Formats: sequence, structure tokens, C-alpha cells
Amino acid sequence: MVKYPSGSAAALQKFTKVSQKRGESHHRKDVSFSDRGMTLEQMINESNKYYLLKEVAVVHKKPTPVQIVKVDYPKRSRAVIKEAYFRQESTTDYNGVYNGYYLDFEAKETKNKTSFPLKNFHEHQIVHLEKCLKQAGICFTIIGFTSLNRYFVTPASAVIKAWWTKSKSSVTLAEIESWSVEIASGFQPTLPYLTAVDQFIADRKSN
Amino acid sequence: MVKYPSGSAAALQKFTKVSQKRGESHHRKDVSFSDRGMTLEQMINESNKYYLLKEVAVVHKKPTPVQIVKVDYPKRSRAVIKEAYFRQESTTDYNGVYNGYYLDFEAKETKNKTSFPLKNFHEHQIVHLEKCLKQAGICFTIIGFTSLNRYFVTPASAVIKAWWTKSKSSVTLAEIESWSVEIASGFQPTLPYLTAVDQFIADRKSN
Repeated sequence: MVKYPSGSAAALQKFTKVSQKRGESHHRKDVSFSDRGMTLEQMINESNKYYLLKEVAVVHKKPTPVQIVKVDYPKRSRAVIKEAYFRQESTTDYNGVYNGYYLDFEAKETKNKTSFPLKNFHEHQIVHLEKCLKQAGICFTIIGFTSLNRYFVTPASAVIKAWWTKSKSSVTLAEIESWSVEIASGFQPTLPYLTAVDQFIADRKSN
Repeated sequence: MVKYPSGSAAALQKFTKVSQKRGESHHRKDVSFSDRGMTLEQMINESNKYYLLKEVAVVHKKPTPVQIVKVDYPKRSRAVIKEAYFRQESTTDYNGVYNGYYLDFEAKETKNKTSFPLKNFHEHQIVHLEKCLKQAGICFTIIGFTSLNRYFVTPASAVIKAWWTKSKSSVTLAEIESWSVEIASGFQPTLPYLTAVDQFIADRKSN
């Protein structure tokens, strides 16, 4: 894969080309998420790329933590990692800065149609969100019901509370609807989750 | 390496044990950085661990981005990555949240005694710091003169300006002194860089 420096014109061109290859039109506003054939992670990454290019926010997915044990340095060729192990993560997948606010979130998707299994979240993610909330970060989750093409930005506090409730193994779609801001489908960005974040910020200010 | 969940009592014990193994006393307040035999990265990681345990701030080092190509899943043993490549980074090494503020920084050390070579910073780091500054993050660098045991927290704006000045290949120690808050040696945390951050926050408020 050719790598462009983030934020360059080349990255925008690449972004546009990828979209065109998928047969999408820039002028179609009514595309549904499923048309894209993208995972939730891909949609968020494309949205973050867009927000970065437009100087709206700086949000990146954290790399998978890997313990590197052995690296080969072949002549006239780039270094190859020959032995490495996955390490335990200690944070969520995404964080960044938006207009002075620290954002921290985790994204999960389910094929279920009526409920979201809480086992999708791991304890370290819940604990990390709690810690960031204590530091006054804007913390949330993006929950995708892929079979329904519905995506929700849910405040971390609601997910944390449900996760620690021992009698609960899942939350219903109705509960998620009541806690969350649903994200409307858009072309640019693919998943305009900052609209929901704006609402959380407004709620915080009014409290 | 045994991994403890972040923020647990076990992690604190481990932290303490490691310190004791190094022959440090908890009651000695006058330890100099060089006594530790730690790299700047290790000092920052230990400080972040301390800040996390004490619920002062949530700051993590980002993992090295790796493109994983081949993974073996041996029976009764954990997954081994057999082929992977280093990917281009697009951010700085550290970010997190402190009392509602987004923190973003890069750490560099030099053995020089009178100046710091600017080639230690890479363009993607400078560009990322610029982007985070535009989003009103608290952005800085931690510069260590290891031969002098002196460590400075320098606002990103000063480093960015020097980096883009074509005639400049390095900045003098005197320049760094004038721009920065020098970090006093401490035991816990090893490198109390948030003291400098407090000053940047106070400066921002008074402007």
C-alpha cells in the first residue's frame, strides 16, 4: 500500500479515488451504509481521515500493540519482523482532540437486530473509559447494528453502568435508542459522529 | 512479562518492586535522573503509570504501528506473528487527557551538551503537533539532555517554529532554557512533567 503523509492533497485524491472505484457518486446523498461494503472500523477511519483533512478534529485509531522479538534487516529491502506477539491492550481504539475537547471512544458492531451483547466490550475498555471520564474527557461508544444499518453514538456513562450490572448480559435496541444520538447516513464523512459529540458537549455545558 | 490490568493494586506493587530492585529508596528525594539508568521513554512511561494510578491524568504511549502479514496459531500456545512490517507513523508518541485538557507530546533525548539537533523531530510529528494545536490541545515536547541530566518541557509552538526555519539545524540549550519549563527531579513521578503543563494551562488562561 502506498502511504501518503496524513493531511496531504494526495491523501484527499486517494480518498476520492477509492470512493469512485466503489461506484459511489459524490452527489448522491441518500446512500445507505450497507451500500459501501465497509466495516464499522473502515467507516470510522474514513470519517477520521475526512475530519483531519478538513481540520475539524484530529482522531486516530491506535495501532494494535505488538511485542516485537525478532527483526531481520535484509540488504536492499525493508526490515521484516519475524517474531512478535500480541500484547494486552490497555485503552480503547480511538482518541483525539476536537475543538479543545479530548475524545475517547470504542466502536463495536453486531448482526443482532434487537439487542447488543455486552460481552463485546472488554473490561480494560470499560475501565479506561471510566478513567477518561474522571479526567473530563468526552467518552462514548459507537454501536453499529449492521443488519439494520443503524449506528448510535452512546455516552460512555450509560454503557459503563450497563456493563457493571451483573444481571445484564445485553442491552436492548430500545435502551440504546433512548441513551444515544443516532448517526444519520452521509457521504462525507461516512459516519458523521461529531454531530452527536456536539450534542454531548452542549448537554455538558447546560448542566 | 506478566501484564497487570492498568490501575490495579498489582501494578502499583510491581512499580514499587521495580524501583526497589534498582536500589532506590522511597525516602530519598535527591536522586538525580542518571542514577536510574532509565531512558527518557522509560521515565515518561513510569511517570504516566504513576499519574494513572493516582488518577491525575490518563496518558499512554502509542504502540508502534505494524502491518501484520502472517500469524501462526500453534496448538496450546499463543499466536505468533511470523511476518510483519513497520508502518509510517502519523502522530506523536504520547497523548491523553488531563483535567479536561487534551495532551499531545513527543519526547527526544540527546547526548549533546550545548544544543539539540532538530533532525531528531520528523516532519509527521511536527505536522501532527500543528494540527493538534489548531484543535486547542496542549502540545509540547519533552527534550532530555542526558549528559547534563536536564529535562525540559518545551511548548510545541516554539519547536514547530524552529523546525520550519530553514537556516536552523539545531536549537541551543540557551534557547531551550528560555522557551521551556525545566522539570525538577522527583521520585514519584520520575519525571513530573505535568507541573510544566499546569504552567502552560495557566499561561493560556491569562492570555
